[in-house]
Amino acid sequence: MFPMLRQSFHELTIATRGRGLYEFTSGVESWLAQNHFNAGLLTLLVRHTSASLLVQENADPDVRRDLEAFFQRLVPDGDALFRHTAEGDDDMPAHIRTALTAVSLSLPVRAGRPVLGTWQGIYLWEHRTHGHARRVALHFIGE
Amino acid sequence: MFPMLRQSFHELTIATRGRGLYEFTSGVESWLAQNHFNAGLLTLLVRHTSASLLVQENADPDVRRDLEAFFQRLVPDGDALFRHTAEGDDDMPAHIRTALTAVSLSLPVRAGRPVLGTWQGIYLWEHRTHGHARRVALHFIGE
Amino acid sequence: MFPMLRQSFHELTIATRGRGLYEFTSGVESWLAQNHFNAGLLTLLVRHTSASLLVQENADPDVRRDLEAFFQRLVPDGDALFRHTAEGDDDMPAHIRTALTAVSLSLPVRAGRPVLGTWQGIYLWEHRTHGHARRVALHFIGE
Repeated sequence: MFPMLRQSFHELTIATRGRGLYEFTSGVESWLAQNHFNAGLLTLLVRHTSASLLVQENADPDVRRDLEAFFQRLVPDGDALFRHTAEGDDDMPAHIRTALTAVSLSLPVRAGRPVLGTWQGIYLWEHRTHGHARRVALHFIGE
Repeated sequence: MFPMLRQSFHELTIATRGRGLYEFTSGVESWLAQNHFNAGLLTLLVRHTSASLLVQENADPDVRRDLEAFFQRLVPDGDALFRHTAEGDDDMPAHIRTALTAVSLSLPVRAGRPVLGTWQGIYLWEHRTHGHARRVALHFIGE
Repeated sequence: MFPMLRQSFHELTIATRGRGLYEFTSGVESWLAQNHFNAGLLTLLVRHTSASLLVQENADPDVRRDLEAFFQRLVPDGDALFRHTAEGDDDMPAHIRTALTAVSLSLPVRAGRPVLGTWQGIYLWEHRTHGHARRVALHFIGE
């Protein structure tokens, strides 16, 4: 009566070149397509404490630039408030920026794609000033 | 041995009249009831980059008023920091407020309702000064 | 052909002693182990409007201290902006801090454990100055 549900796991690695937003919507959609996943629930989890996940506008690049500028002002590098400073002036701000955004995202999938709005893209937000290889765990359950 | 799991999709449209919090807990519960969904996992995704989802207090309306007032002060309209200004003074703040809150929510469902606490309601947070028709994708998996 | 999927529910109660981060990763993993859940999707929902969920560093305790110090400065207790003051100077800040962080988390599970990174732990963030018994709903779907 009901179609059989199945689940699958994957991990994407996103190479960053320092602070900013890195879109990986196409990487997510490629994995769904390769596995012929049509309809279900997609979960993303970033496996780091100084990078986060964001769904945001993928049209005007100034939006990403302004997001980054706002967060740099809101959480200043080298703030005298911080005691956790051994890993650099940008480390504690990176933890706070991660707390202020999201580590996991849950996205319904239909017709093989996340049901994002017209202007929405999936981003990895690197909060450290240096580049890193960031791992994002993927899980799909559905048909 | 185990009950058969099934999944279903829906979309709610929430008409806003400008900035503020719009509760739609009853719209979510109606959909669960119409489909006789008893126990499972409910996922909500807002399909916009200038509105977000929030679970917050549904008792004293001053809580919503204070949330809105705090976010207006935290992310000032027309801030000279912003370059993305073509769509109005409130547009870039709306993107930032969305980044600071949530685009997706995951809610366990038991006895036909999300297992919210006594004072929790589900809200759409409109971050633009003008009203919009906001679409929220729903996904249920369970029994 | 596919392994049968099942789901299960649980609730953890976390006793807090006032503001700060309380790790409960081991409580989550114990529940997974007791039920022999191996691979699937774990969802957590905090059932309160003045406490939230966080995945953050579980190594240097200064990280948690700095997170708490930053949020206290960002959302000042007794701010003259607030009207919702009947429940104390820390109450409206607690609602705002909850809005700025997360009420639900979605964590893929493999080999019986959430696929967290090396430094990630699961925390309940108490935002009130007094201690409370905080309830976190758990849902698992998988094998």
